[in-house]
Amino acid sequence: MIYITRRERFNAAHRLFREDFTDKQNDAVFGKCSNPNWHGHNYELFVTVKGELNPQTGFLLNLKTLSKIIREQVIVKLDHKNINLEVDFMNGKLASTENLAIGIWEELEPHIKALAANLHCVKVSESENNFVEYYGN
Amino acid sequence: MIYITRRERFNAAHRLFREDFTDKQNDAVFGKCSNPNWHGHNYELFVTVKGELNPQTGFLLNLKTLSKIIREQVIVKLDHKNINLEVDFMNGKLASTENLAIGIWEELEPHIKALAANLHCVKVSESENNFVEYYGN
Amino acid sequence: MIYITRRERFNAAHRLFREDFTDKQNDAVFGKCSNPNWHGHNYELFVTVKGELNPQTGFLLNLKTLSKIIREQVIVKLDHKNINLEVDFMNGKLASTENLAIGIWEELEPHIKALAANLHCVKVSESENNFVEYYGN
Amino acid sequence: MIYITRRERFNAAHRLFREDFTDKQNDAVFGKCSNPNWHGHNYELFVTVKGELNPQTGFLLNLKTLSKIIREQVIVKLDHKNINLEVDFMNGKLASTENLAIGIWEELEPHIKALAANLHCVKVSESENNFVEYYGN
Amino acid sequence: MIYITRRERFNAAHRLFREDFTDKQNDAVFGKCSNPNWHGHNYELFVTVKGELNPQTGFLLNLKTLSKIIREQVIVKLDHKNINLEVDFMNGKLASTENLAIGIWEELEPHIKALAANLHCVKVSESENNFVEYYGN
Amino acid sequence: MIYITRRERFNAAHRLFREDFTDKQNDAVFGKCSNPNWHGHNYELFVTVKGELNPQTGFLLNLKTLSKIIREQVIVKLDHKNINLEVDFMNGKLASTENLAIGIWEELEPHIKALAANLHCVKVSESENNFVEYYGN
Repeated sequence: MIYITRRERFNAAHRLFREDFTDKQNDAVFGKCSNPNWHGHNYELFVTVKGELNPQTGFLLNLKTLSKIIREQVIVKLDHKNINLEVDFMNGKLASTENLAIGIWEELEPHIKALAANLHCVKVSESENNFVEYYGN
Repeated sequence: MIYITRRERFNAAHRLFREDFTDKQNDAVFGKCSNPNWHGHNYELFVTVKGELNPQTGFLLNLKTLSKIIREQVIVKLDHKNINLEVDFMNGKLASTENLAIGIWEELEPHIKALAANLHCVKVSESENNFVEYYGN
Repeated sequence: MIYITRRERFNAAHRLFREDFTDKQNDAVFGKCSNPNWHGHNYELFVTVKGELNPQTGFLLNLKTLSKIIREQVIVKLDHKNINLEVDFMNGKLASTENLAIGIWEELEPHIKALAANLHCVKVSESENNFVEYYGN
Repeated sequence: MIYITRRERFNAAHRLFREDFTDKQNDAVFGKCSNPNWHGHNYELFVTVKGELNPQTGFLLNLKTLSKIIREQVIVKLDHKNINLEVDFMNGKLASTENLAIGIWEELEPHIKALAANLHCVKVSESENNFVEYYGN
Repeated sequence: MIYITRRERFNAAHRLFREDFTDKQNDAVFGKCSNPNWHGHNYELFVTVKGELNPQTGFLLNLKTLSKIIREQVIVKLDHKNINLEVDFMNGKLASTENLAIGIWEELEPHIKALAANLHCVKVSESENNFVEYYGN
Repeated sequence: MIYITRRERFNAAHRLFREDFTDKQNDAVFGKCSNPNWHGHNYELFVTVKGELNPQTGFLLNLKTLSKIIREQVIVKLDHKNINLEVDFMNGKLASTENLAIGIWEELEPHIKALAANLHCVKVSESENNFVEYYGN
């Protein structure tokens, strides 16, 4: 069993808030992250896949394939987008880093499985000080 | 003459576009950066001040003072904000990294001068691949 | 189950030595790290908490709360301090990165538990080449 | 149980290809990584060891000892070398990051065991976007 | 006058040696960098352009254009290549970082000038410890 | 004319204070940096040398030589030391990053000159947020 990780990046806008909260409640819970005019981040996404080596290639899986899947299934939907308004798999969810990691996991998992590999971890880094890891449930 | 640099960070949303351009023109010039629903970045700001050492302190200037000025004059206006909609010194300007660097210079310069020091460079980094430096005119 | 990590930083002085060792013994075991006049580091602290998402906030726990706990319980005791002389929870222990990670875990754990979350890992990085991780016992 | 990690670095040339493949097959599977004239990387190696604290030193193991083992057993064989042509433990294997991580594990493990510690993880980073982790089998 | 910098990356093999030197002489001057079987690096290239803002776009020049020029004129010739054997503009030159920076400057300058901008600096970073800057002559 | 930079690192303890200040005055000017029990940093030192290429080697100067000079003249005096108490060239000076950069310049300059090269810049980084550059007087 070996683990391989690919990093991809995206820049997006978001806002943390609940529609059923008053502005005051949103501010109390989410602080400046609830600014109605949005703010944004340079997100880093680390996707870790685990499995057995393919003896013919010396690869767990081809990183070009993994990168292509991540870009087509996830990055294209997130990069230079508004996470609250434009990302189908975040529809109706709070745009937290936690939900983002879970959402990205769900988008990627069937495509990794189709390669006969196993998604191990989705890590989303929002800033140099904050990151979330999700290992599935 | 010695140079001292302080880094501060802010997260903001922005959009590159001209109101007098059609959507098609905006897309041709600014690409995905013109997304009407905004996107955002983790900006890094490096402020370099130059001057003579104060022999009593061994400092060019106290970094706590410099950090306080940058935070009060610039970061509080930019952090978790929408650069197009909410930042007074970017009013009516294209929200490019270039204009941001020039705007930050203009905000900071009188306050640095008041400390008997000289603003040397404002560097704004938008991503790990792109940054702008402005040395005044 | 999801994992969220907050990075905080502190600058501190320390020295690796045993009082019951001669200078020669200290030098043999701890080398230049046993310099009696101290040396120091820019430490990075990564605190990872695990738990279930709060469906109302989309958070595992509020990172502002986590950051406040880490600063109040740990950083304020370590930052710009001498780890051998001034840090209560390191009293009588060798000021190694290993003991630092364990000590920080013990300081933080009751406060994380009080938030109905679980401390998962304390990682202390002493330099770009060395770091320690502790997952409790 | 505590975990300590040492980073070491090496610069090496390599090429991904199979002798029993035609050039066309090599290009289809390995792309530009199969360039017959080689290319290279600044590899980063992170070696994580786990075990109990030595109460006399406050160490899991002396990082100087760990660094010395890594340099003598691995770095000296890899640094400024051609991984395909000059590295005994990569003989007859595809020079993938996966095989490199496994090969380094096998070189290091007996020497870590001899210190009464346990090798936990060998992580090899080929670029800022790609890395492999191996935890033994 | 404002300065904008774009980072691009490439992985390449090289060797430092003179054909008119004996092996012993090459080893004395170039050390392990003269290994006949090559070694390699993850190079980082920072290209800085200076000029006046275009008031219509708020740009000095469009970073997409700058990135495209750097990739087409330089990266495609260097990435996953052998600098000694395969890079036309390094033909007959020692494959040092200094010569690489000068060679890249000469490749890029006419294309930057064609955009009515000025190439200011080519910075080539060979490792986290070594980099070269060239500002033209 | 070309510029080459070598990074070296050192870990040291220091304290900012004046003997002719009361504790209260030291605290007012230097804050927690005046802690009498010291604190410390992972300093990064960037030494930039400028000059003409040596056509025989393709080097401005051999980085091994430059690294050796920096280590012998500077790093050995600073690494794992107390800057206030143990560093001859900081004797009687405030242990600020500014004075450190100037002191390192003065230590290095004659040795760089002896190589027929010119010291261009000494940059000392105290933390990820603060650095000083000195270009001589």
